[in-house]
Amino acid sequence: MKLLAFLLMTASVLAEAPITLVIHGGAGISREELSAEKEAAARAALEESLRAGFKVLQSGGSSLDAVGMAIVVLEDSPSFNAGRGAVLTSAGAVEMDASIMDGATLKAGAVAGVQGVRNPIRLARAVMDHTPHVMLIGNGAEDFARERKLPFEPPDYFIIPERVRQLERAKEKAAKKQASIESLPPSFKAGTVGAVALDKAGHLAAGTSTGGMTNKRAGRVGDSPVIGAGTYADDDLVAVSCTGHGEYFIRCAVAHDVAARMRYQNATVGDATRAIIHERLKKMGGDGGLIALDAKGNVATPFNTPGMFHGIIRADGTIRIAIFEE
Amino acid sequence: MKLLAFLLMTASVLAEAPITLVIHGGAGISREELSAEKEAAARAALEESLRAGFKVLQSGGSSLDAVGMAIVVLEDSPSFNAGRGAVLTSAGAVEMDASIMDGATLKAGAVAGVQGVRNPIRLARAVMDHTPHVMLIGNGAEDFARERKLPFEPPDYFIIPERVRQLERAKEKAAKKQASIESLPPSFKAGTVGAVALDKAGHLAAGTSTGGMTNKRAGRVGDSPVIGAGTYADDDLVAVSCTGHGEYFIRCAVAHDVAARMRYQNATVGDATRAIIHERLKKMGGDGGLIALDAKGNVATPFNTPGMFHGIIRADGTIRIAIFEE
Repeated sequence: MKLLAFLLMTASVLAEAPITLVIHGGAGISREELSAEKEAAARAALEESLRAGFKVLQSGGSSLDAVGMAIVVLEDSPSFNAGRGAVLTSAGAVEMDASIMDGATLKAGAVAGVQGVRNPIRLARAVMDHTPHVMLIGNGAEDFARERKLPFEPPDYFIIPERVRQLERAKEKAAKKQASIESLPPSFKAGTVGAVALDKAGHLAAGTSTGGMTNKRAGRVGDSPVIGAGTYADDDLVAVSCTGHGEYFIRCAVAHDVAARMRYQNATVGDATRAIIHERLKKMGGDGGLIALDAKGNVATPFNTPGMFHGIIRADGTIRIAIFEE
Repeated sequence: MKLLAFLLMTASVLAEAPITLVIHGGAGISREELSAEKEAAARAALEESLRAGFKVLQSGGSSLDAVGMAIVVLEDSPSFNAGRGAVLTSAGAVEMDASIMDGATLKAGAVAGVQGVRNPIRLARAVMDHTPHVMLIGNGAEDFARERKLPFEPPDYFIIPERVRQLERAKEKAAKKQASIESLPPSFKAGTVGAVALDKAGHLAAGTSTGGMTNKRAGRVGDSPVIGAGTYADDDLVAVSCTGHGEYFIRCAVAHDVAARMRYQNATVGDATRAIIHERLKKMGGDGGLIALDAKGNVATPFNTPGMFHGIIRADGTIRIAIFEE
């Protein structure tokens, strides 16, 4: 009997996909900008996010729920540029973008330019689940958040002192020379968060959430809420979440390009992501990175910036958190 | 001398790309909904648009300028769902989206959820030319339009009686049964406009402009302003502008998918567009079509709906306008 039970258990484990969760806390950070204190806080938040998302996967939950849970933890952490701790627009406001995609159905939800919503990733999920639409923006998206009774927070909740100082410095720099985005320290545009997950049923999901770029013009939207640019998921291929200089990621439709290279060239997740991040984007001057996960649990975390906060938790519960090595 | 002049002229003509402009006025129209009067007005506007854009190409202007010019004519015409004549949101407002992309540089500009701006395609072009960004939305985009001194119009200019009636009917239908988008007559979601062009220098460009869907939720954004979904252009491959049920076009990143099939599978523009419109989207239930043009002047205009307003003008000035045949 014991043997039979063991065999049955083994068979059921074998039939399950190797649950995996990969997260990122943004590309662009450099060693010089990262104090020991900041690093410790970021690592702790990444670990908390991995454990929260993994618990969902372990208990048989969906990759969509795991992605949402992992991102909520990162949005709630002031260490990253999403939710609490998001960067400020030139008007000193927090305008957030997020998206999520279901690899099983190709359904997706996205929000852009939302203010006051505590967890934009939950709003993106609600758009996917409770509207016939993919993308809602601005006041319309906020009204929908109220309809769904999602929590709102006052500006004080989102705005942390470091972001106010960053905005001041960005404005000083902008006043001195032409306000080129390239001239800003990497951390001014870093910190987008994202997650990709594979659940027991073999379904993939991807999600991304961001406050965008410091001193951005009101209404500017980067790649994070753009399905195909910042986020993509397809069970047959891959789940992808991007971070970096969003304009380049939109122009190259980076997340969908990874899927396309895998679909049409039979590229591996490693080859497909290397080609777009280290070759194509690098040549164009597009700074950034991404996390990608295929349906067999293969992971790629390429970035062409000095660092990218990221972490992986595997089916056996082993965790790897890294910043400066892929 | 005459022979030499003739040879030189021939050589210079041969060195030039075969200037071509393709436009659409939206997929979804059915024969029953199209009165002779409406058809005549739409055909006249399409011809005017083709001639205006072609004049730019003929005089050596850029494909970007030709695309912008062709779309301005269609935005100004009340026959289509873009600019004047755009459909109404559930709140009775006009919220417009547009995007444009330069195949030579992969630079792009897009706006979403803008009100009052007479020609959203010109605003998208201004975002591309005069900001480091790709996408601006809502009030931020409108403020930028004022900065650029682009013309605004009052609601009366945009709102035509037919759209008010369509909104009333859409609301009645929504009140009776569940407000499913699928239950609306095709014309309620038809009428997006777009253009793709090839100039003498061999550069491609694409642009798209829309009012979205009748009775849409405020803040809903479809594929038209999403680079990679509704619009894409890459000189090495193709220029694409889409029209249809935007949510499906976003999920499949249709415009970029055409480019990806050509890049990674060496598909022709005909094969690539047929595969996505007549196979993939059709299977998913995604209604719509697209116009596509490659750098050799090959054109494809597939749609899986009863009709799609579209037109082509070739280097020799011949015009073809069609609605119910590709």
